[in-house]
Amino acid sequence: MFQGMSPAKQLIDDLGRKAVKAAHRLAVCSTEAKNEALEAMANALEKQISDIVTANDRDMYAGKEGGLSEAMLDRLKLNEKRISSMAQGLREVAALPDPVGEVIKEWTRPNGLRFRKVRVPLGVVGIIFESRPNVTADAASLCLKAGNACILRGGSEAIHSNIAIAKILNETTARHGIPDHSIQMVEVTDREVVKAMARADQYLACIVPRGGYGLIRAIQEGATVPVIKHLEGICHVYVDKDADLEMARRVTINAKCQRPGVCNAMETLLVHSDVAGEFLPPLLKDLQARKVEVRGDEHVRRIGGGSVIPVTEKDFRTEWLDLILSIRIVDSLDEAVKHINTYGSHHSDSIITRDSKSAKAFLDEVDSSTVYHNASTRFTDGGEFGLGAEIGISTDRLHARGPMALEELTTYKYQVFGDGQIRE
Amino acid sequence: MFQGMSPAKQLIDDLGRKAVKAAHRLAVCSTEAKNEALEAMANALEKQISDIVTANDRDMYAGKEGGLSEAMLDRLKLNEKRISSMAQGLREVAALPDPVGEVIKEWTRPNGLRFRKVRVPLGVVGIIFESRPNVTADAASLCLKAGNACILRGGSEAIHSNIAIAKILNETTARHGIPDHSIQMVEVTDREVVKAMARADQYLACIVPRGGYGLIRAIQEGATVPVIKHLEGICHVYVDKDADLEMARRVTINAKCQRPGVCNAMETLLVHSDVAGEFLPPLLKDLQARKVEVRGDEHVRRIGGGSVIPVTEKDFRTEWLDLILSIRIVDSLDEAVKHINTYGSHHSDSIITRDSKSAKAFLDEVDSSTVYHNASTRFTDGGEFGLGAEIGISTDRLHARGPMALEELTTYKYQVFGDGQIRE
Repeated sequence: MFQGMSPAKQLIDDLGRKAVKAAHRLAVCSTEAKNEALEAMANALEKQISDIVTANDRDMYAGKEGGLSEAMLDRLKLNEKRISSMAQGLREVAALPDPVGEVIKEWTRPNGLRFRKVRVPLGVVGIIFESRPNVTADAASLCLKAGNACILRGGSEAIHSNIAIAKILNETTARHGIPDHSIQMVEVTDREVVKAMARADQYLACIVPRGGYGLIRAIQEGATVPVIKHLEGICHVYVDKDADLEMARRVTINAKCQRPGVCNAMETLLVHSDVAGEFLPPLLKDLQARKVEVRGDEHVRRIGGGSVIPVTEKDFRTEWLDLILSIRIVDSLDEAVKHINTYGSHHSDSIITRDSKSAKAFLDEVDSSTVYHNASTRFTDGGEFGLGAEIGISTDRLHARGPMALEELTTYKYQVFGDGQIRE
Repeated sequence: MFQGMSPAKQLIDDLGRKAVKAAHRLAVCSTEAKNEALEAMANALEKQISDIVTANDRDMYAGKEGGLSEAMLDRLKLNEKRISSMAQGLREVAALPDPVGEVIKEWTRPNGLRFRKVRVPLGVVGIIFESRPNVTADAASLCLKAGNACILRGGSEAIHSNIAIAKILNETTARHGIPDHSIQMVEVTDREVVKAMARADQYLACIVPRGGYGLIRAIQEGATVPVIKHLEGICHVYVDKDADLEMARRVTINAKCQRPGVCNAMETLLVHSDVAGEFLPPLLKDLQARKVEVRGDEHVRRIGGGSVIPVTEKDFRTEWLDLILSIRIVDSLDEAVKHINTYGSHHSDSIITRDSKSAKAFLDEVDSSTVYHNASTRFTDGGEFGLGAEIGISTDRLHARGPMALEELTTYKYQVFGDGQIRE
């Protein structure tokens, strides 16, 4: 049956068949059944903390031997507190409303046909992720709640932790009437498996990759399965000439410093030339006190002096994920918008202004998934949006844009009710 | 600047850059401006019928010389009536509500941040199509109304007609304040251009291919741009044991015979064994009178006698697009659902029954974009749905499923309004 297939393709073919079967049954599971399973999964993780920690110890040992950085090891590490927080995440997903079955629209045509656009699961979702083993529980729970089977492929560094977590989840779902193979962890971590997943369009509705640019681009190359990309965030704050400068200072510091290593942190600050002379000097001192390296254009350097490094065009295209900030002075709102649409990554951008006309122009013209008026870019997050948990922040335009939560893990179907209508 | 690029890639790179610029400006065009342009485009097509017919004559001549079939020549042919109908299509698109700017959802968070999910254009849409030149006007008008720039690549058979139509449309939009390069026709028709379009993800938001399986699969291979596939329709009618048999007969005949060459025509009829003996004999006579070739399983052949050809498993996976019908007798609703989910193409399927429980089970469990209770599958169409014109019927699950109209040619952004909120 599998003759002529590579081992990776055989494996994905096998998992894919099983997942499709599971997905058909999962699509009609009741909300109660799914929620009970999620609660039980949370309890099971907490009860079996020592099994998870034992598996995680193996990964941590291999990671240290293999020379993983301290930051990587920290992402990999699981302890009682982190496992409890994973369990808490499952309980939060259980508490969210079930998106499946929601009637999105309903209407009747003159011929009497009644139309209902209803939310339904996507089917089988592939999640490809790197080091953090908590993604196993997060992704599995969101997929389950949205009625999707999932095929999870984690990174090799976390393989023992991932397998241990998936095993506990599967033992629990089996006891709670969730179809077998609803959650499948790929236990082989070579890149061939990723390629095979990306071409398994007869089984997978889509792939959500969570990881660095290299991983995502590698998946996209040669993929026949739709990939919902989660790429970088080159986010901007624009301080308008009519800004409340104290508010602008607070938002700027927050967007850059509160957690610089995440995709919704600011990377470039744009300041209107009318207020640059007043706004920048105290801000630059503030940034210096917080150990932020500032790179600025000539105008910024005239204001800021020797501590400001000359900024390059490449800097404007760089996601620092660090305490580094590019600053540019612009002469108009238009120039700010043009800069953001040219150098940004269409993720999250904010204007600080008291002028509602300028705010409207910025929010309409900046082509990003989230645009803010008088707020920090750091709010781009499923939780902060009120969507509950999220599977990531999509940088794509199709299907899911911005925070990707339960709704974005579904599609729809049309149910049409007639009394014998035929087309003339 | 273009060193090292293939000519096809250079061409698409050039069109892509221009399209992105146009799309940024088109995204903020007013509804009035777009509608006026669409009306003017309709008038211009009608005024310049002779230019279009002259160009079309060249395509028709080349087509006859090249040995195109009568059916292909008919699809290619443009005359006064067909050009008027294209113009009428443009006026209908002008009359549709503008999807851009629609507030999809609005909510406020406890911290005072006000969220608005707003519909915005996709950006640049690529349309790749085969012989019918009317697609040029249809696709361009839908893209324009939804605020998208488009790059159109038609088939070589219709190239002179396509160029003539695009020229008229562009001259008109230019006089009505629509940005230059909003509608671009690729004047080179070799396959390399299609490949280059499929990899131009820095410019194109998505590609909508309209054509046969070979074309669509070729585009998908190696594509980095999301492709919204419009594949075949293997549609079913299931006559339940509790069906109104007279209604079942009417719907069956309509779904098969009213226009057999389209994707929403029925290809396979499933009949419950309890009613097969009563339902099939008169139906088979009726089908015979309409010159429908019937292929049936053993049970059908026992009922229908020598005129029924034995059906194969391959037949069940075949989109006939012709007066051919596969018939299978099933012993339960479950068996019908399983057949449809296994052999169908998730397009359009109908149950005929008086039992609302059976109808609900069928509509919930059949995994197709449109599922009907007591109606013909032939209604799967943007116009019949009340969506106005359509760009096609998507057989994909992501972003657009089923009839793809103006709404599906948009995405959304989040506009967030604050008064200085920062993340703690």
